[in-house]
Amino acid sequence: MANPTAGMLIIGDEILSGRTRDSNGAYLARRLTETGIDLREIRVVPDVEAEIVAALDALRHRYDHVFTSGGIGPTHDDITADAVAKAFGVGIDVREDARALLASNYRNPEMELNAARLRMARIPDGARLIDNPVSKAPGFTIGNVHVMAGVPAVFEAMVESVLPQLTGGTPLKSLSLRVFVPEGEVAGPLAEIAAGAPDVAIGSYPFQRDGRFGCSIVLRSPDPDRLEAVAEKLRAVLKRLGAGEIAESRSG
Amino acid sequence: MANPTAGMLIIGDEILSGRTRDSNGAYLARRLTETGIDLREIRVVPDVEAEIVAALDALRHRYDHVFTSGGIGPTHDDITADAVAKAFGVGIDVREDARALLASNYRNPEMELNAARLRMARIPDGARLIDNPVSKAPGFTIGNVHVMAGVPAVFEAMVESVLPQLTGGTPLKSLSLRVFVPEGEVAGPLAEIAAGAPDVAIGSYPFQRDGRFGCSIVLRSPDPDRLEAVAEKLRAVLKRLGAGEIAESRSG
Repeated sequence: MANPTAGMLIIGDEILSGRTRDSNGAYLARRLTETGIDLREIRVVPDVEAEIVAALDALRHRYDHVFTSGGIGPTHDDITADAVAKAFGVGIDVREDARALLASNYRNPEMELNAARLRMARIPDGARLIDNPVSKAPGFTIGNVHVMAGVPAVFEAMVESVLPQLTGGTPLKSLSLRVFVPEGEVAGPLAEIAAGAPDVAIGSYPFQRDGRFGCSIVLRSPDPDRLEAVAEKLRAVLKRLGAGEIAESRSG
Repeated sequence: MANPTAGMLIIGDEILSGRTRDSNGAYLARRLTETGIDLREIRVVPDVEAEIVAALDALRHRYDHVFTSGGIGPTHDDITADAVAKAFGVGIDVREDARALLASNYRNPEMELNAARLRMARIPDGARLIDNPVSKAPGFTIGNVHVMAGVPAVFEAMVESVLPQLTGGTPLKSLSLRVFVPEGEVAGPLAEIAAGAPDVAIGSYPFQRDGRFGCSIVLRSPDPDRLEAVAEKLRAVLKRLGAGEIAESRSG
């Protein structure tokens, strides 16, 4: 059976202006891979309601899950929850369980639950809250869309709250062979190996270090025996090309 | 006059699997902002021709420029040039000027211009080459689409080859005020300031350091006088909230 699929929507002007470098995409990608959910697409859009709604609608109809990052804080530019409610055509209002969670964080009079913070308790009708062990203000799941914060520590904690509730597939295992052989030398024989092993995903990633060219060839499959069989062919090719040491690593 | 707009398409299974963390998006975002071109959207898609074509068509009809990253090397998984030719409905073949550039890099017999490397001289009909001072293999521009390599050093060099040929707009200047005041305290007065200054983009980005909460408030406008006027109101608010030191920084 094919693995479940996912799309990701990153919301934030600060990513598109280059002010902030996103790390949530890489975190989610790694964790979904480990869970056996195939991340098929990432989109980054600005803090503009129509853009968020359009991207959300495109992704949620296409993939089994959509994960969003950003725009659920207390300030005027935090408009994700409203955009999600609009995309689903449901109402949104302060919800008592979300308000209680926030209040539990703000017993200190200096940190009272003011009107701005109450915005973080506005939850679209029919959503389930996502636990935020870092700073209480919850995310939420509505339909197949999981709405999470942009601050990396909070995003990551929310991902860990959501993943155990999802049905994963078969995690891909990967085997990487890293050699100081230029990619252009490997490419021909590698294409032949790839053509003969359509069940193993084979990628090649060139690098340059200390003026020498090399590449990492990454094999991916749920089946470790198939990985090993393809790797054996590849090792023979690399030796024929005069590769010295082959650095191998495995994951999954 | 409004600034030119841009979209970015990042092509690569390795980003979606979490194996590689993209840095080209952040680089392009920063350089476009400095050039006065507004980056409005980033998409990451896998090494699948239909996905590349669909995303490219969506972006190129919507924005003044599209910048792509990845998939133009010599290996079997490098399919971007073919996908771009397909999107534009034009032919693609090895082109003499591109072949000559590659040959100039491979005079060393160990590094000969083999069939796999010749793939990198396949250029869609009607495209202009993009100079690659790092490793010769060119990118190309066709219509409003700029096709560049995924290896960061090469991507960055190609961006610098392309940008001088584009007409930029008015670079946004930005002024950031960073304070140890929780975002929820600032949010109310900040919304009032934002409502009174629709010509200045105002973003708020929370952070946590050494157990203390703070936020960076970023003002952006092409007009430095407007930035200063809004910043003055904001400083007054922050002082009223008991902010200690306000760390200010400017760019653009």
